[in-house]
Amino acid sequence: MRFVCFFNQFNYLLVNTTARELNRRSMACSRYEYVKKYEQDDTILPNVWIVIRIDGKKFHKFSKTHNFEKPNDENALNVMNAAATAVMQEFRDVVLAFGQSDEYSFVFRKDTAAFKRRSAKLLTYVTSLFSTSYVMQWTKWMSVPLAYAPCFDGRVVLYPSNENLRDYLSWRQADVHVNNLYNTAFWKLVLESGFSNQKAEERLRGTLSADKNELLFQEFGLNYNNLPAMYRKGTILLRKRVISSGDNDEKGRQAIVQLHEDLISSHFWKSHTEILGKYVPGTYKASEILPRLVKLQLSTKQEQKQEKQEEQKNPENLAGIS
Amino acid sequence: MRFVCFFNQFNYLLVNTTARELNRRSMACSRYEYVKKYEQDDTILPNVWIVIRIDGKKFHKFSKTHNFEKPNDENALNVMNAAATAVMQEFRDVVLAFGQSDEYSFVFRKDTAAFKRRSAKLLTYVTSLFSTSYVMQWTKWMSVPLAYAPCFDGRVVLYPSNENLRDYLSWRQADVHVNNLYNTAFWKLVLESGFSNQKAEERLRGTLSADKNELLFQEFGLNYNNLPAMYRKGTILLRKRVISSGDNDEKGRQAIVQLHEDLISSHFWKSHTEILGKYVPGTYKASEILPRLVKLQLSTKQEQKQEKQEEQKNPENLAGIS
Amino acid sequence: MRFVCFFNQFNYLLVNTTARELNRRSMACSRYEYVKKYEQDDTILPNVWIVIRIDGKKFHKFSKTHNFEKPNDENALNVMNAAATAVMQEFRDVVLAFGQSDEYSFVFRKDTAAFKRRSAKLLTYVTSLFSTSYVMQWTKWMSVPLAYAPCFDGRVVLYPSNENLRDYLSWRQADVHVNNLYNTAFWKLVLESGFSNQKAEERLRGTLSADKNELLFQEFGLNYNNLPAMYRKGTILLRKRVISSGDNDEKGRQAIVQLHEDLISSHFWKSHTEILGKYVPGTYKASEILPRLVKLQLSTKQEQKQEKQEEQKNPENLAGIS
Amino acid sequence: MRFVCFFNQFNYLLVNTTARELNRRSMACSRYEYVKKYEQDDTILPNVWIVIRIDGKKFHKFSKTHNFEKPNDENALNVMNAAATAVMQEFRDVVLAFGQSDEYSFVFRKDTAAFKRRSAKLLTYVTSLFSTSYVMQWTKWMSVPLAYAPCFDGRVVLYPSNENLRDYLSWRQADVHVNNLYNTAFWKLVLESGFSNQKAEERLRGTLSADKNELLFQEFGLNYNNLPAMYRKGTILLRKRVISSGDNDEKGRQAIVQLHEDLISSHFWKSHTEILGKYVPGTYKASEILPRLVKLQLSTKQEQKQEKQEEQKNPENLAGIS
Repeated sequence: MRFVCFFNQFNYLLVNTTARELNRRSMACSRYEYVKKYEQDDTILPNVWIVIRIDGKKFHKFSKTHNFEKPNDENALNVMNAAATAVMQEFRDVVLAFGQSDEYSFVFRKDTAAFKRRSAKLLTYVTSLFSTSYVMQWTKWMSVPLAYAPCFDGRVVLYPSNENLRDYLSWRQADVHVNNLYNTAFWKLVLESGFSNQKAEERLRGTLSADKNELLFQEFGLNYNNLPAMYRKGTILLRKRVISSGDNDEKGRQAIVQLHEDLISSHFWKSHTEILGKYVPGTYKASEILPRLVKLQLSTKQEQKQEKQEEQKNPENLAGIS
Repeated sequence: MRFVCFFNQFNYLLVNTTARELNRRSMACSRYEYVKKYEQDDTILPNVWIVIRIDGKKFHKFSKTHNFEKPNDENALNVMNAAATAVMQEFRDVVLAFGQSDEYSFVFRKDTAAFKRRSAKLLTYVTSLFSTSYVMQWTKWMSVPLAYAPCFDGRVVLYPSNENLRDYLSWRQADVHVNNLYNTAFWKLVLESGFSNQKAEERLRGTLSADKNELLFQEFGLNYNNLPAMYRKGTILLRKRVISSGDNDEKGRQAIVQLHEDLISSHFWKSHTEILGKYVPGTYKASEILPRLVKLQLSTKQEQKQEKQEEQKNPENLAGIS
Repeated sequence: MRFVCFFNQFNYLLVNTTARELNRRSMACSRYEYVKKYEQDDTILPNVWIVIRIDGKKFHKFSKTHNFEKPNDENALNVMNAAATAVMQEFRDVVLAFGQSDEYSFVFRKDTAAFKRRSAKLLTYVTSLFSTSYVMQWTKWMSVPLAYAPCFDGRVVLYPSNENLRDYLSWRQADVHVNNLYNTAFWKLVLESGFSNQKAEERLRGTLSADKNELLFQEFGLNYNNLPAMYRKGTILLRKRVISSGDNDEKGRQAIVQLHEDLISSHFWKSHTEILGKYVPGTYKASEILPRLVKLQLSTKQEQKQEKQEEQKNPENLAGIS
Repeated sequence: MRFVCFFNQFNYLLVNTTARELNRRSMACSRYEYVKKYEQDDTILPNVWIVIRIDGKKFHKFSKTHNFEKPNDENALNVMNAAATAVMQEFRDVVLAFGQSDEYSFVFRKDTAAFKRRSAKLLTYVTSLFSTSYVMQWTKWMSVPLAYAPCFDGRVVLYPSNENLRDYLSWRQADVHVNNLYNTAFWKLVLESGFSNQKAEERLRGTLSADKNELLFQEFGLNYNNLPAMYRKGTILLRKRVISSGDNDEKGRQAIVQLHEDLISSHFWKSHTEILGKYVPGTYKASEILPRLVKLQLSTKQEQKQEKQEEQKNPENLAGIS
């Protein structure tokens, strides 16, 4: 809430008062208020892409504590996705979010005027809402209770050109590929071939992508490209008008939808011109069965209430929130 | 987690590979990595007090939704205090925290080297951990479930001198007094005298502290100074060695303790010299009955487990976390 | 020059020395050196146009003291142009400079790595060299001696897109037009019609461009568009390969050339594609008589010496430099 | 001068005008003015010492070109001192300046409000005025003409505490000692013993202060401590009320005076309490013969005119300013 020094507006009234305490306080109030001037302006340069990237603090330990499946825990990723969806629902100038592992990047429109482009405001609102949503969403996806409060850091990075922004996102998506291929091979060796962590590391040291693909195929019969796209490409969130097959409403309802496409290729940018162009949400043709995250957004209040009641009947997975 | 471009270390191996996808990706990886250089240094000037103040976003609405008692909801304040305690337990260079209403200020030692004094790191870690702890602590204190994810903004303010720091904290504590006296009178008029909000506002417009004190005493028989100190002074958190009366351990265990003292007067600073001086936690003589927040910190893991089990038997108040 | 703490490298030698003074100093040196860490990083975001604009301090008084001709003093403007030319000769990443009145803007290439893009370095080198060159050039153009040391402020402004940069320059050139039209009318009224300053101001208050054009034409027989382009458009400096009519050298020699074109129109940008495009200096076809500023740059050292000697025979105008 | 978009105030008048050029320009003016918003706030944190340090660019070459005496050129140092004096005369919130070699540090009062504490304004005004004054003062002290325009960089460094400030200045003065002792020995070896530069360097490598003192004494009969204090301690500029011996005016006239004292010791700070304390210039008891720099400041306008006229009779040393 705002800081108000009530007395300031009534200073003229204070002249004749005899209450010493009052005087002391009122003078104190005006005397101390100078400290507000120590706050420094942090307005962001206009006309640049504002990227806010959030990153889990010590999530290596966090994932162990909560027994995340290796190399990917679908539900844990969905907690991230759900938290990021909450951020995009609240901050409508976020035109795209990209997440993988324990990180999420939020892209604000070049010309956003949200919070007057004040850097700390943008940064902390996004980080805070992501953080609280992560905890709130936990029980929706995870069966094990939250053992302790997770923590995320956030940073603001500015990109002047569209090319810079695409390269930033390509950098993050290339990172998913590299890490996931390695992790997939690593955990196959550990979990299925009984390697120690160290032995698995040694086995993979110096190998190329092709080698790891080969290893997965030859030794484990796994075609890497058949793994779920979310693991291989990360998750892209876009704001779309959802047109489900049975929907009569031509305009559709807006929702944040999840994609797992290749955003390094130019095809992606041609398919979603609203991101770099004049911002009007594109359309999203949903399959018969809506993804749960989308369904949750489109459900009526009545439906949400029902879901909540059902959860109340099975509260055991909430017990850890303490 | 860290960003690693695995291929970089093996670039020399890539010369003869024929896998085109691999090449594309590995080149991509190094080609995109330049975007890291767009992150700008935000190291904070050495030798200044670093204050991080957190503030609830739209808590007027939030307090209505959750039916906070007016003018003060003891339990809701304790959720804030508990969340702030969690922050102080994690970040040991926070020497003092001060909270009131929906805001909390955290003071880092002048010479802290935490996170290399990087502004965004300090700001977001504190904001994030406070935010998640707030949600996690909610059910410990509140009977009504959380209706939606709360959100906090945070800012960094730097104060070069000890006097500046004291004035900052005095400013915040003077604010508690002014607001609480007003709110106490306002809600008495509304809840007990049946005034409309507008009428109550008009009745109080232009009144001084003395007038409001008088009004409370004459019309409602309330001596303002008898109200709980937490409402009148806010909450100060300090790290102390707790010596409880029955304790044989002379050194005591460290804990974050809550005080509701007048920090505007110099007496406070003489009693807690560790804040401005060489930092060694002072001692805290606990009364027979430890405050719940302190007790929670000092309880053994066994005791914590028991408390959790008891909560599981009464899970109804958790249902709202969704 | 660099800061070196000589002792630091020899600290291991200091163990057995008995010279107390030495010890005190050497310890002092390492003891004090921590203050270097208080310097804060000010690296400019990559991939943005860096504009440094210099502006005369109290040049209203300065122009009075030195009897500048009103409304434009050709020679005084040439001192500015010559100083700016010196800056462009030294800092080769400045692709364009634009000057008018007592201000000059310097545009650094988007991808300049000069001084590692450290803001204060770029800002002060440009401001300092412009300032000293202004004093050094004074006697080349002005007959009255410099009465006191002039002073310029400088600022850094960043523009992400080409359109921003063009708009910035258009803003400055539109400013020339507006100011010069007003000043031309004002001084005509004062110098030729005998108006007081105040009366002239009143006469022009609320008039539009068309009105002032009409006034100049009707009352003073002056067609505004026939005034020298330098007064109406300001001065654009570009780096070009100069091809003079009698020149056999096809490649030409590089020089900073002055233009007084309309840079608001797109024609300008199509004629000088090197500014926004890949930076290769364009060509400049000089007329038979080279402008003096260009001639000075292309003259041989022998010729420069001769010019200097001639100046020494007429030193009276230098006397004021004291 | 200020940027004014004249049309803005008359926009309401533009509705009915038919002059297309006018419309284009006036619209242009308002259309382009948005670029002003790209200027970013750089207000300096209150209550910290603001140090601006200026440093010659490539002064190694500059000193060679102008045949500076080695290891110290008294006159060249006095050009620096005179330029710094001009800065202190203009910017009255500079309480102390310290110079050595080709650098000068200016200390602004902690609570200065000059130029609203805008960093770039303070930085460029000081750098620019120092630069132009350096050129203007050159002929007063040097017999060789200026061969080309010198250039200085500048930086802003902030120090929160008095101790920090003292340590900063001690760091710079310790640097004088270390460099000057080395340079004195080096040039003795080169100029008097006929060593090559390289041989001299080898001879001194690894020596301590005591060794160099010994070398100077044994081989060259030089007692280092007898060298002029300006070479050994650098130059401190303070604002003082000058009381010359024959002066009847008790209050004295203010001037910037030069000291060459040891500022590392606390004695200096006890003698000049105005620097760290409440700022009131101290007194300076001048000897019979005032230093030239002080004399120049106190001379009447009549005297200054005479000095100028004398210079005009001997203008040969000015010829290089071109």
